[in-house]
Amino acid sequence: MTSEEQRYESGVRALQSITGGTGAAVVESLKDIAPDLADWVISFSYGDVMSRPGLDMRSRQFATIAALTALGNVAPQLKVHIHGALNVGCTPAEIVEVMLQMTVYAGFPAAINAINVARDVFNERGVSVGT
Amino acid sequence: MTSEEQRYESGVRALQSITGGTGAAVVESLKDIAPDLADWVISFSYGDVMSRPGLDMRSRQFATIAALTALGNVAPQLKVHIHGALNVGCTPAEIVEVMLQMTVYAGFPAAINAINVARDVFNERGVSVGT
Amino acid sequence: MTSEEQRYESGVRALQSITGGTGAAVVESLKDIAPDLADWVISFSYGDVMSRPGLDMRSRQFATIAALTALGNVAPQLKVHIHGALNVGCTPAEIVEVMLQMTVYAGFPAAINAINVARDVFNERGVSVGT
Amino acid sequence: MTSEEQRYESGVRALQSITGGTGAAVVESLKDIAPDLADWVISFSYGDVMSRPGLDMRSRQFATIAALTALGNVAPQLKVHIHGALNVGCTPAEIVEVMLQMTVYAGFPAAINAINVARDVFNERGVSVGT
Amino acid sequence: MTSEEQRYESGVRALQSITGGTGAAVVESLKDIAPDLADWVISFSYGDVMSRPGLDMRSRQFATIAALTALGNVAPQLKVHIHGALNVGCTPAEIVEVMLQMTVYAGFPAAINAINVARDVFNERGVSVGT
Amino acid sequence: MTSEEQRYESGVRALQSITGGTGAAVVESLKDIAPDLADWVISFSYGDVMSRPGLDMRSRQFATIAALTALGNVAPQLKVHIHGALNVGCTPAEIVEVMLQMTVYAGFPAAINAINVARDVFNERGVSVGT
Repeated sequence: MTSEEQRYESGVRALQSITGGTGAAVVESLKDIAPDLADWVISFSYGDVMSRPGLDMRSRQFATIAALTALGNVAPQLKVHIHGALNVGCTPAEIVEVMLQMTVYAGFPAAINAINVARDVFNERGVSVGT
Repeated sequence: MTSEEQRYESGVRALQSITGGTGAAVVESLKDIAPDLADWVISFSYGDVMSRPGLDMRSRQFATIAALTALGNVAPQLKVHIHGALNVGCTPAEIVEVMLQMTVYAGFPAAINAINVARDVFNERGVSVGT
Repeated sequence: MTSEEQRYESGVRALQSITGGTGAAVVESLKDIAPDLADWVISFSYGDVMSRPGLDMRSRQFATIAALTALGNVAPQLKVHIHGALNVGCTPAEIVEVMLQMTVYAGFPAAINAINVARDVFNERGVSVGT
Repeated sequence: MTSEEQRYESGVRALQSITGGTGAAVVESLKDIAPDLADWVISFSYGDVMSRPGLDMRSRQFATIAALTALGNVAPQLKVHIHGALNVGCTPAEIVEVMLQMTVYAGFPAAINAINVARDVFNERGVSVGT
Repeated sequence: MTSEEQRYESGVRALQSITGGTGAAVVESLKDIAPDLADWVISFSYGDVMSRPGLDMRSRQFATIAALTALGNVAPQLKVHIHGALNVGCTPAEIVEVMLQMTVYAGFPAAINAINVARDVFNERGVSVGT
Repeated sequence: MTSEEQRYESGVRALQSITGGTGAAVVESLKDIAPDLADWVISFSYGDVMSRPGLDMRSRQFATIAALTALGNVAPQLKVHIHGALNVGCTPAEIVEVMLQMTVYAGFPAAINAINVARDVFNERGVSVGT
């Protein structure tokens, strides 16, 4: 059984390697009124779940972007995970592909709104679908 | 510009290679009262979207399974795409990984209900997470 | 200001003219553990809302079927309102049109699942998209 | 049977005691293009539903906050009901508890986005989770 | 079988007649990072789906507004289609009616948030529910 | 920092006291293809979250039932938590109250479908809203 320290350390590493400063800022922002939620993001979401070895990081980010695009009401988290996808080696063009695919499963409005979030992140990082 | 015949033929090929008989049966079942929807599934969903070269088939199926798990109200389609994921080379364990990851993004009920659909498909095909 | 009796009577009339026996059975079934919900269905949903003069009954049923198709998790109510649409003069083909349109706004799974509910209702009533 | 006047008066009282000025402002804002919706908020939502004696006001607000957090697309109403919860005696810490619990049922993004709405309301009122 | 050129031309015509400049601007904005999505909006959404003869344009817009109101997380598209509804001859009062009806099927928050989008569009165009 | 053993033991206790045999059966059923999900249900959902002292068990169950009713696509979990609510001292009438309240926030179909799940649980346990 993994110790609490191991869960937390795995989580910090995964949070850092996937989201870089973006995710750390979210965690930090929760500490004033929901410090345990900040801990759960690290120990559960990134330590227990995202650190698991059974799926590569690129596939995990494609899965997350697909889900957040389909849910359609979580733009702040979609933004964090577009950064995360780029950080783990997904290309802008691949991220757009996942969003285009969501036209079929969640409809055009969900896909279009996600594309608009992606554009903001791509511009912020100076990357483009041709890179 | 792709001709209509090319779209349809690409769609038939993608539908067959991804979903095998399962997807063809869905398309066939729509022809009585919604024949144009059956055509759109082939020409648009599989011809225009799923046939695109910019993302490998395994990643596309991970994305679809993530989205359908998160939406949580489309069990019949989730079933088709678990078959599809297995058909394009995803392992049962990887499919389960994507669903486990959805606990974070869509909650435990969505993940648990998806796992129960996966179990049915795995049993039907005689595969298991250890294979 | 409409009296309570007027609201209730308008509701009973609208419920009857739209849903016929189907809606009355739903109301009846609620009376054991949620009698006030049964009253609200009549006085609020059908009395206050569906009886309003500003939109014709066919348009109201198209709107309801569109919404229930898009929500995707309310098959029992979708069934009641397909009956309702037929009762107020929508044709099977028009009902299918509304569902096909939802591929754009809510994705293919939502539309396909609604079509399957429509087929059941059409078969039950012996009508078809060609009628 | 409750008269229309009784429903409206109960609604005005409940709206005032739960939401204070916040809810009244919402109702007022609807009167230009949807005056009947403004009436329904008072007579149905607050008069028929929220005035019912079978559940205490604190429990009702916990239920509303849980639902609005889980739905995830209704931040303006969540804001009104965080005010409402504080008005009927829920503490900031209890409101945060309900939102934390939603990580399990609706996922982390829904909970995090709700926490961010709560922080705004707490700051506006000068209260904190330690109070 | 409709040719690709016919689909595209039908789509351009339908997009123009329904959404006017609003929809064209959305399509144009997608061309930088998702040009194929821009094409699909024209050829599939407006060419294949919205151009179909089986339902009049007013009913189609009522259906779209109902669905987008109920989904509750697609305000930009709701705005486009309120413009669209006005463009094809729906009155402001009828658009409000459809949104009021959604209180029953999707709850009050969804209806209220849609009304607020409608108010913005009505103000922008200088129309009112009395016109 | 709580040890892993403490999280698990708290979780087992909370799962047992809230859901009784119903929840244990769900956990057991996950062990074949998703044993880690079974562990997370215990250690995270019930150990970290539901065991927290800041809110009484009755309020937690009202919150869960409200959220699951509003989400509308998680009937199996709603059933478990209606059992759970009864187990921690909520009355059938109070559970119905929470569902009735959801007509306002999530619409009538969501509330009606939840009532139908409640009726099944009440019948199974031989309790009624009058008890």
